[in-house]
This record gives sequence, C-alpha cells and structure tokens, in this order.
Amino acid sequence: MDSRRAEAFSDGVFAVAITLLIFNLLPIGSGKLSYRELGGAWPQYAAYVVSFLTIGIMWMNHHTLFGHVRLIDRPLLVLNLLLLMGVVAIPFPTALVAEHLTGPSKVKAGGSVAAVIYGVVMIVISIFYNAIWEYLVRHAEALGSRGTRQALRDAVPGFGRPPGLAAKIPRWGLGLVGYALGVLIAAFWSAGWALAVYGALAVYYLFNHLPDPVAVAEAAARDPEDLTSAGTD
Amino acid sequence: MDSRRAEAFSDGVFAVAITLLIFNLLPIGSGKLSYRELGGAWPQYAAYVVSFLTIGIMWMNHHTLFGHVRLIDRPLLVLNLLLLMGVVAIPFPTALVAEHLTGPSKVKAGGSVAAVIYGVVMIVISIFYNAIWEYLVRHAEALGSRGTRQALRDAVPGFGRPPGLAAKIPRWGLGLVGYALGVLIAAFWSAGWALAVYGALAVYYLFNHLPDPVAVAEAAARDPEDLTSAGTD
Amino acid sequence: MDSRRAEAFSDGVFAVAITLLIFNLLPIGSGKLSYRELGGAWPQYAAYVVSFLTIGIMWMNHHTLFGHVRLIDRPLLVLNLLLLMGVVAIPFPTALVAEHLTGPSKVKAGGSVAAVIYGVVMIVISIFYNAIWEYLVRHAEALGSRGTRQALRDAVPGFGRPPGLAAKIPRWGLGLVGYALGVLIAAFWSAGWALAVYGALAVYYLFNHLPDPVAVAEAAARDPEDLTSAGTD
Amino acid sequence: MDSRRAEAFSDGVFAVAITLLIFNLLPIGSGKLSYRELGGAWPQYAAYVVSFLTIGIMWMNHHTLFGHVRLIDRPLLVLNLLLLMGVVAIPFPTALVAEHLTGPSKVKAGGSVAAVIYGVVMIVISIFYNAIWEYLVRHAEALGSRGTRQALRDAVPGFGRPPGLAAKIPRWGLGLVGYALGVLIAAFWSAGWALAVYGALAVYYLFNHLPDPVAVAEAAARDPEDLTSAGTD
Repeated sequence: MDSRRAEAFSDGVFAVAITLLIFNLLPIGSGKLSYRELGGAWPQYAAYVVSFLTIGIMWMNHHTLFGHVRLIDRPLLVLNLLLLMGVVAIPFPTALVAEHLTGPSKVKAGGSVAAVIYGVVMIVISIFYNAIWEYLVRHAEALGSRGTRQALRDAVPGFGRPPGLAAKIPRWGLGLVGYALGVLIAAFWSAGWALAVYGALAVYYLFNHLPDPVAVAEAAARDPEDLTSAGTD
Repeated sequence: MDSRRAEAFSDGVFAVAITLLIFNLLPIGSGKLSYRELGGAWPQYAAYVVSFLTIGIMWMNHHTLFGHVRLIDRPLLVLNLLLLMGVVAIPFPTALVAEHLTGPSKVKAGGSVAAVIYGVVMIVISIFYNAIWEYLVRHAEALGSRGTRQALRDAVPGFGRPPGLAAKIPRWGLGLVGYALGVLIAAFWSAGWALAVYGALAVYYLFNHLPDPVAVAEAAARDPEDLTSAGTD
Repeated sequence: MDSRRAEAFSDGVFAVAITLLIFNLLPIGSGKLSYRELGGAWPQYAAYVVSFLTIGIMWMNHHTLFGHVRLIDRPLLVLNLLLLMGVVAIPFPTALVAEHLTGPSKVKAGGSVAAVIYGVVMIVISIFYNAIWEYLVRHAEALGSRGTRQALRDAVPGFGRPPGLAAKIPRWGLGLVGYALGVLIAAFWSAGWALAVYGALAVYYLFNHLPDPVAVAEAAARDPEDLTSAGTD
Repeated sequence: MDSRRAEAFSDGVFAVAITLLIFNLLPIGSGKLSYRELGGAWPQYAAYVVSFLTIGIMWMNHHTLFGHVRLIDRPLLVLNLLLLMGVVAIPFPTALVAEHLTGPSKVKAGGSVAAVIYGVVMIVISIFYNAIWEYLVRHAEALGSRGTRQALRDAVPGFGRPPGLAAKIPRWGLGLVGYALGVLIAAFWSAGWALAVYGALAVYYLFNHLPDPVAVAEAAARDPEDLTSAGTD
C-alpha cells in the first residue's frame, strides 16, 4: 500500500488538532474586556504557544519518519493511528494546564495535576514514535526503504560522546527523559516550571534529531550493496 | 472522473471527524481538578478510544475499498456521501455514551438509550459500506478495476468453514452481526457491556477483512483473460 | 497557476464545513436522555441531513466545475473564496432552522425567519456558482480548458423543450428558482415546507446538471479545430 | 525535503482556521429570533467577512510565496510554523472585535482593546511573511528556486515612483503601514473605523502584490545565465 494517502490523512489530523488549540483562547474577553484582563490570561497564551509548537514539530518529525519508506502496511497504519490518538488528545491537557496554572500551587492542586497529565500524554506519544521507528527499521526492506535495516540504525543521530556504547544513545531519547523530568517537577514542585520544561523540549525538537531520509538514500547510492530497491522513485 | 479528489475529500472528512472527538474530553476538569475527578471521567476516555479506533479503522477500510478502482462515478459519489454522513455523526452517539454510561443502569435509562443509538449508527454505516462494495463489484469494469466482477467477489475473505455455502459468507459480515448483538445487549442488559462489544469490534476490524487490491491486481496479471484494463497504472 | 492547490484548499474547506454540522447535534441528550427526547429533536436531524447533502453536492459540483480547466488565475481565486465564504456559512442558518423549526408557526416567527435566511444563503451561493461558471467560460482558453468558449456553452444541459430559446435555459437554473420559491414559502406560509423544498433541491442536484468535462474534452478531440490546448495532460 | 507535504499541511491549517470563523456566528439567534435581532448582529457578520477574506488572501499569498521554491528546509518549516501560529490565532481577535465593537466607544473600552489586538495579530503575521520572503530570497539556490537571489529581489513589485530609492519600496509593505495605522485608530479614535481599515487592507491584498513565480521562471529561461537549476521540473 502506498504511504501517500496515509500521510495525507495524518497531515489532516495534525492540521485539525493544531488549529483546535485556538478554542482555548476563544472564551477570553467575553464579558468585560480590558488590557489587564487580557494580560491576566497569560497561561492561556503560554499553553497555546507550547502546544502549537509541540504539535507542529511532531508533524515535522512524522514527515521525516515516513520519508524513510515508500510503502505502509496494516500494523504500521495501526501504530500510526495510536500515535494520532495521542496527538489529537493534546488540546485536552493543554486546556487543563491553561485553566489551572495560576491556581493554588500545592502538590495535588489543580495546576500540578494538569501539568502531570500534560507530561504523561507527551510520554505516551513519545513511546508510539519510538515504536513506529522500531517497526520501520525492522521492516525496512518490505516497506521500500532506500537504506537497509543497519543503515537506518546507523543514521540515528547520537550524542557522540562519551565514547563507547553511550555514544549510540539516540539524541531524540532526551525528549523522553525531559518529559519524565517535567512530570516529576509538576508532581512535587511547580506546574509553571514544568510547563517551562515542556516549552524548552519543544524548542529542543525544533532542531532535527532524526535520521535524514535524503542522507540515508545518498549513502545507499554510494554503496550499491546497501541499495534495497533498485527502481527509480 | 478520477477517484483521487473524492478520496482526498473523504480523507479530510475522516480527519476532521476523528479529531472532533476531543471535544468530548474538553469539559473535563473545568472547575475543580483532582486525580479523583479525572479518574471518574473514565467513560469519556473509553468512548474516546473506542470511537477513535472505530473511525480510524473505517478510514483504513475506505482506503482499501477505493483502492480497487481508479475511477468514480456520480452514484458512487452519492453512496460515499451517505457513508460520510454516518461517519461524521459518530461524535454524537459517542457524546451520548460518554455522558450517560455511568447513570442508572435500568432498561430505557440514559446509558441504555445512548448505547442503542451508538450501535444503530454503526449498523447504518455498515450497510453503506456493503452498498459501496456491491456497487464497486457490479461496475468493476466501468470503474477501471484491475480485476473482473467475479475476481473481486472471489477475493472477499470468508470464514472458509464450515465447507459449502457458509464458507462464502464474508468475514466482514461479522461486524454487522456484532453491532446488532451490541444493540440488543444495550437495550436489555447493560450499556457498559455493549460498549465493550463495540470496542471489541473495533479491535476485530484492526485486522484486515477486506479483499486486498494488490492481490487482486496480481491475480489478474497472472491470468490475463481476467485483465480488465490493459493499461499500466 | 496550477489549479490543484486551489482545489486541495477548497476540498479542505468543504470537508471541515460539512463535518462541523455535527455540532448541531451534540447538545441533544445532555441532561436527561430518553427515546422520546431523542425523537423530539427531529428538526435537528432533518437540518443535519439536508445541509450535509447540500454541502456534499456543492462539493461534487465544485469538482465538476473546476474539472473544465487546468489553470486558475487571481480573479478566479477571489470568486472561489467568496463562494467558500457562503459554503462555510451554511452551519449558521442550519442551526437557526434546527432550533426554531418547531416554534410558533406565524409569519415573522423564529422558524419563518430561520428558513428565509437559509434560502437567502443558498441563493447567494448559487449566484457565486454562476459567476464562476461565467468566468470559466469567458476565459476558457487562458485557463487551459480543453473546449472552446462556445463548446463549453453548448455543453450546458438544458431542458430541451419547449423548443426554441427556452430549450437553452440551463437545467441548473432550476435551483435558483427553487430556492427563491423556498424563501417565499418560508416568509409567508410554513418553515417546515420550505425546509422540504430545500431538501428536494438537494436531491435534485444529486443528479448531474453540469456540463461533463470528459464529454467536452472528447468532443474537442473529435473536432480538432475545437481543440484549445494541443498538449497532453 | 520536497515542499509539497509542507504546503498540504499549511493548506489544511488555513482551511480549518478559515472554517472555524463560523463559530462566531453560531450563537446568534439562539433564544428568540427576529429580523431585528439578526440585523443587530452586524458586527459579527462584518468581522466574519473581514477575517474570512483576510485568511483567504493570506492563503493565496502563501501559495504564491512557496511557488518560488521546490524544496523546503528545517528553518523554513519553523518560520512557516510560526506564521501558521499567527493565522490560527485570527479567530480569537475576530471574536473579540465581533463581541465588543458596538460597546461604549471610549479609549480603552472593550471595542478599542479588541481592535488593537486584531491589528497587532495582523502585524505579527506580516512580520513572519516578510521573514519567510527574506529567507526564501537568501537561500534561493539551495531551495531550488528558478530565479537567482537578485532576480527574486528585482521581481518584487514596487510603487515605481517617486523615482530613486523610494521606487524600490515593496508594494506589500503598505499592508504593514496600514495595520499600524489601524492600531492607532483603534487605540485613540474608533474601533469601527479601525475594522474598516482592516477590511480595506484585505481588499487591497485581493490584488497581487507579490512577485509572480511564473514570471520569474520565464525571465530565467530568457536569460540562461540567471538559471539556477538546469533540471526539468
């Protein structure tokens, strides 16, 4: 099955989910309206910006991920559907955070609960991204990848140091650690700082930490033994 | 008329409908927020997951169905529109179920009514899927299918046994029976169990029970007499 | 400018607008839920069905209309945008009709006002469809149509009789007359019957009353002098 | 990276954002409904029309802008994401303006605040459009533009006079000046006139003030030294 219609459907879901974030802002300023009141809604704007960047960057990474293959099979469609189920859910914790961020700052207070849920949703999404990557790599040939299984594994950007095994840890794994850290901060310390961590992670992912499909294809072209599919695109 | 723009429009409708399911979750946690309150909203999450998987799998099957043809005509567009009218309606019974599932469990109580409506909508959608398949088969040649009418009929996965006519019953028909069963359970016994049946049906459909366009095309290529359209794709 | 991205954008707008119609149904059954209450919401379902079919068929006709050309220019984009502004507005009169249809039946009562507005929006949309067709015909060559200006005019299905000039009246013009009639019925007689007229018009447009791009192209191929663009598609 | 999937995603976001504007109209006429009440909601219609045209024209210009390149890189995707974040926000100031336009007309009253916010959002969006254009020009070669950096700069329509440097000021810059003027009018004089200015700017942008990708490509073809990419499309 060609991967294009699956990508078009996913693009649509991402596009709708990112646009629905505006519903968090719409209730602001109904009733009396003043600069002071608009300014007091800053948690709404912060949550909008963080979630918008997060979904947007998830879309970019989705794009990069599926750029490695030309075909898609039933299990991959199902994994993709579970991933989208997480992405579509993002407006929910976004609304929770936006509403409860400025409430009482105690542990288990609304803001803390909201920021914990936000991080948990992100962790679930990260797990599905990892599952999709793992599936893509293991079925590289069947899915029409231009690189072999090993070439794909080697293309994952790592930290490079310390030398040895640690150099192989994928850079994108930092996201999972970061969100876990954010959940702990939210649960035991401060919802505001947790949101700052989530925002910093969005900025971190602005930079590309995924293997580049073009580079993998070029490597395969240089070393023909590595070439899986001989046909032209 | 080329089927691509119709598929793009359908993809868009599926993508928006699946994403609108999040509106069921957004009212949760406005007001006071605690883990207990979030946990108490489990029917909302269950309804979200079941309906998300259901719409997602319907999209996959739509994809597979229209993969059998290259053209689309006016009656097929109308059938497709009626199908989409059912798919777009799904957030409505989803909201009913989510709100009333934990209410009083009597027959004709809210939860029972909601789960009955949910199943009826699914049955209506199933009927339109069957109508589209029937139309595709009967107009296989005119719609540019790679297989003949008979080849398409033969490609429908059946149960295989008991031998004889029963082996020909299409596997996907189980869905219609399942939803009818769910409606009966909802009407006379338990809304919760009915939702469990609907969820199980979504999982059942995760596996492919539709004829595979690629297999039909390959069969046609092996047996050229069966080849309807001689052109390359 | 290639017409494809404009069609993709229009498809997206149609897909979102048609799906947003579900918001009319979502408030039903919040609170107490019974079959009686669900049945009492029949104007909501009727309005949903009529508007869904209407938007869906408008999408089909949009598809057919732009199938006549390969290019699109700035004025056509602007006309298309004005058309879409009408299409996107449809959920508004739909909600008005759904809420007020069963109210008091006097002239200028809510139901009457709602059904008048519904028809007026349809008339405005019809006018833009006619403007786009007129523009397409007048700029057939520049927009890469396969038929000449005259061939396009000739391809418009008319009533055929009475013979003479009346035979040339385009069949689709009946829509405009029908909606005007519906508005009069709504204003002076009955909102319910007006909605029935609007529904009948949707069914009328289920059948194709637009010139067929493929037929025009084939006619042009038979008579090469009529061929505007000699290139292959 | 091919620019097509990024355009498809952007198209989706534009399509959803423009369609969500209808939510401003939906609350009208719930409760009692009369022509007088519908007429009294004119600021809602005015805000709908102005914002619909504005987003629609922004989509056209997005289309034109990205028509200059065939590839897209990570920084451009990020700039595009920030632009979309502004576009998606438009329904928010639209709702503010629609609700508060007919309120008390004092400085710092609701209408004034709303119209200021509207203009500020437009200014932010304009800045991102300028940033994207600047980025496209500076990386013309790497992004597969058909014209060189200088050819792109020369293609920007200016006012032409007064002669000299002023002739080089891009015509589209008038938008930025116009929105700034609108903000001043809103802040110190009248929200209604500010909205009129915003509407006039939408009409101004109906006419094309961006360099035409086709013209740039043709100029490059006439003067082969200017040709950046020799490949066929």
